[in-house]
Amino acid sequence: MTSSTALLTDRYELTMLAASLRDGTAFRPSVFELFSRRLSGGRRFGVVAGTGRLLSLVRDFRFGDDELRFLRDNRIVDAPAVKYLEEYRFTGSIRGYREGELYFPGSPILTVEGTFADAVVLETLALSVLNHDSAVATAASRMSIAAGERPLAEMGSRRAAEHSAVAAARAAYIAGFGATSNLEAGRRWDIPTMGTAAHSWTLLHDTEEQAFRAQIDSLGTGTTLLVDTYDIRTGVETAIRVAGTGLGGVRIDSGDLPIVAAEVRAQLDELGATETRITVTSDLDEYAIAALAASPVDSYGVGTSVVTGSGYPTASMVYKLVARQDSDGSWVGVAKASADKASHGGRKAAFRTIEDGVAVSETVVVADGFEKLESPSGHTDGRALQVTFAESGDIDTAHEGPAGTSAARAHHLRVREELPVRALALSKSDPAIPTVYVDVA
Amino acid sequence: MTSSTALLTDRYELTMLAASLRDGTAFRPSVFELFSRRLSGGRRFGVVAGTGRLLSLVRDFRFGDDELRFLRDNRIVDAPAVKYLEEYRFTGSIRGYREGELYFPGSPILTVEGTFADAVVLETLALSVLNHDSAVATAASRMSIAAGERPLAEMGSRRAAEHSAVAAARAAYIAGFGATSNLEAGRRWDIPTMGTAAHSWTLLHDTEEQAFRAQIDSLGTGTTLLVDTYDIRTGVETAIRVAGTGLGGVRIDSGDLPIVAAEVRAQLDELGATETRITVTSDLDEYAIAALAASPVDSYGVGTSVVTGSGYPTASMVYKLVARQDSDGSWVGVAKASADKASHGGRKAAFRTIEDGVAVSETVVVADGFEKLESPSGHTDGRALQVTFAESGDIDTAHEGPAGTSAARAHHLRVREELPVRALALSKSDPAIPTVYVDVA
Repeated sequence: MTSSTALLTDRYELTMLAASLRDGTAFRPSVFELFSRRLSGGRRFGVVAGTGRLLSLVRDFRFGDDELRFLRDNRIVDAPAVKYLEEYRFTGSIRGYREGELYFPGSPILTVEGTFADAVVLETLALSVLNHDSAVATAASRMSIAAGERPLAEMGSRRAAEHSAVAAARAAYIAGFGATSNLEAGRRWDIPTMGTAAHSWTLLHDTEEQAFRAQIDSLGTGTTLLVDTYDIRTGVETAIRVAGTGLGGVRIDSGDLPIVAAEVRAQLDELGATETRITVTSDLDEYAIAALAASPVDSYGVGTSVVTGSGYPTASMVYKLVARQDSDGSWVGVAKASADKASHGGRKAAFRTIEDGVAVSETVVVADGFEKLESPSGHTDGRALQVTFAESGDIDTAHEGPAGTSAARAHHLRVREELPVRALALSKSDPAIPTVYVDVA
Repeated sequence: MTSSTALLTDRYELTMLAASLRDGTAFRPSVFELFSRRLSGGRRFGVVAGTGRLLSLVRDFRFGDDELRFLRDNRIVDAPAVKYLEEYRFTGSIRGYREGELYFPGSPILTVEGTFADAVVLETLALSVLNHDSAVATAASRMSIAAGERPLAEMGSRRAAEHSAVAAARAAYIAGFGATSNLEAGRRWDIPTMGTAAHSWTLLHDTEEQAFRAQIDSLGTGTTLLVDTYDIRTGVETAIRVAGTGLGGVRIDSGDLPIVAAEVRAQLDELGATETRITVTSDLDEYAIAALAASPVDSYGVGTSVVTGSGYPTASMVYKLVARQDSDGSWVGVAKASADKASHGGRKAAFRTIEDGVAVSETVVVADGFEKLESPSGHTDGRALQVTFAESGDIDTAHEGPAGTSAARAHHLRVREELPVRALALSKSDPAIPTVYVDVA
C-alpha cells in the first residue's frame, strides 16, 4: 500500500479543481473553515481531536505515479488537472483550535487558507479525521468526567475498523483515558497499553485453576484475573487461592455490575484480599460509569461505546468556503443560504471569554474581508483559541507524534477546568456556553 | 508507515500467547469462532462483509523488526514470545460465510482453526474488520432494498475516519450501492466513483450562473448541477438556461425533500427539461429513502447514515474459543457461562434451509468434537453456507481485490432473493428466520 493520502478524497473535489483550472478560479485566494453547526446528541461541549493526525496526513497528501495513473485511466480529471496534481503540495496556511480544546456550535475549529485549488482538495481528509476523532474524544471526555479519579482504559478496538481503532485509542487518551488495549496506538503515540487475558484463556485450560496458575506464572501475582468465565464466586475464590491475597486485580465482564461488584468486594475482603482491585468492563458508557460511582470499583475498561462516540459516531463538522477574493481582488465573505444549513461567511477569530476562571462564552469575531482581523483582540477579550499549524505549506511538527498527543491531553484536561459546573452533567441540553458573534465588517 | 498489521491487536492476545508458550498450551489444536449473539437494532438479517479485506490483512500479519522492538522495549511479552512472533505466520485454516452472505444470531460466520497461538492473535483484527464492514453492509442493504431500482451512491467518507471510509465504500457496494464518492475505494476495488461539485464551487464564483457555466464547460451538459446554494427555484431556472434542456441532472442537498423534489420536477418539466434527473443527498437513511419512493427522485446519495451503520456503527460479533483438544488429545467443545453472554461450544456446520425458494431457517449443526462433522449434511439439508478461505495458512486469493469484491456483491444480491418478504420491512423485529441448532454430539 502506498503511503500517499491523496485519494482519501471525494471525487468532486478533483472535478472542481479541474473545472477551476479551466476557468481560472483555481488561483483565487480562498478561506475554508471547518466547523460544526451544532453539538451532536445534546452534548454540552465538544472536544477537538485529530488535528495532529491530520497534519501528518496533509504532509503525505501528494499524488504519485500510482494515484495519477488511476485519475488518468479513469478519466476522473483532464490532462491539465493531472499536471497540476503531479506538482501538488499544500502551500497554504492552517490555523485552528489546539487539539484537546473544547468547541461549541460555530467555533472556527480549523481554517485553511490558500488558493481555491490548495484548499478544496483537503476537504474530505480534514473532515474524515476531525469528525471521527472529535466524536470519540467528546464521548471519552464525558466518560472521563464520570469516572472521576478512577482509571479508565480504552479497549474498543474490536468494535472499530482496524485503523479507526488506533485513532480512537488516541482520541480517548487525549480526552482523559489513561491507557488502551491497542498495541499500534502504544507504538505510534506512546500511549500506555494494558490487558491480560480473555475468556478463551480460561477455556483453553482443563480447569479455571490451571488457567489462573499459568497466568500468574507468566505475569506475576500483580496481574488481573478474569473471574467470570464460569461462576464468579468460584472464580474469585479460586483466584485468591492460587494467587494469594496479594493478587493485583480481578476483572468482571458480565452481570449486573453494581450488585456483582459489591459481592466481589465483600468476598475479596473476607478472603483477606483487601488490596485486590476490581476492574469492570461490561458494556460501559458514561451513564453506566456514573451509576457505578458509589460501587467498590477501582477501574473501568470501556469498549464499544467510546470508539463509537457513545451513540454519536461522527461529529457533524463541515468544511465550507467562507471568504475569497472577488474578480476585482477584494475579499468577500461567502455563505450558502440552503434551508437549515445556512452558514456564517467571513474570516473569523475566536476567543473563550472567561469570568472568574469560568468560561462564559465562545466569542467569534467575524470580518467580511480579512485584513480587518489583523488585531481581532481589539474587539473582545478572553483566551485566544486559534494557533498556527502551517504557514506557506510549512507544517509545525510540534502537534504530531507522541509529543503532540501528550500536549493535546494536557491541554484538554486544563481547559476542561474552565467549564461551568453545568457543563459536566451528562443529560442532553444546550451547549454549556453560548456562541457570540461580533461582526466587524 | 509499515504495512504490517500485527500490532492492530489488543495487548491481551500477546500476553495470553506468552503465558501459553510457558505452560505448553500454545500448541493445543483449537477452534475459534466469530459469530454474533444477536442482530443489532432489531434488524431482520445481517450482511457479512469484510472477509476479503481480512484475508489480505492476515497475509500481512507478520512481526517485523519494528514491531518486535516495540514489544521488547515495552516488555509487552517475554523473550520466548518475541522469538515465536518473529517466526509467526498464520498456518491454520479459515472457513466461513462468503462475503455478502446473510447472517443470523449464532451463524458461524468465520471459523479459525489452528494451534491456540495461531488463532488467538487474530482476534482483534478479525473482529475490527468484520464488525465494521458488516455493520455498514447491513445498513446499506436495507437502503438498497428501500431504493428499489433507483441508483444509490455512497458519499459518506467525510463522516468516517479516513481509512474506514474506504472500507465503508466497499461494504456499501457489496450490499447493493452502485457507486461511491471515495477515490481510494475506486482505485483499490474498481468501484465506480461519482461526484461533480460542492457548494464551495458556486460560492467561489461571482455568480451562480458563472459557476454552472464553468462546470458545464469542464464536464459537459451531462453533468449534475447543485442547485440549492441560494434559492432552489432560481438555481433550477439558471441551470436550464445555462445548460439547455439536455442537462444531465440537478442535485438537491437541503430542504423538505418530498416537497422540494416535486416542485423541482414540475419546474424542470415546465422548462422542457423532462429528461433531467433529480438526485437528492440530504441526510438520507433507509427510512427517508422509503419515504421518497413515490417522489420524482431519480437517484440517491447517502452519507453519514450508511458509513455509521444507520444507528448501529458496529456489529456485535465476538470471537470465541469453541473447541480445543484436551490434555489427553480428545476434542472438547467449550463455552463460557457468563450471565447473558453464554455461548454455544463445539465445532459447527451451517446451512440455510430453503423451502419453495424461500429461506425458512438457519440450521447450525454442532458437534462437541470435530471428527463428528465429517459429513454434516447427513444431519440437515439446505444450502451449505461455509467455504474454505485458507488451508494450512495458504489463503485463497479469490476473495480479495476487485474480483472478490464484485463476487461478494453478486452473491449478496443473489442470496437476498431467498429472504421471505417479511425480512424486507424496515421496522424493528425478530430475525427473519430462526436459528435451529442440531446437536450431533
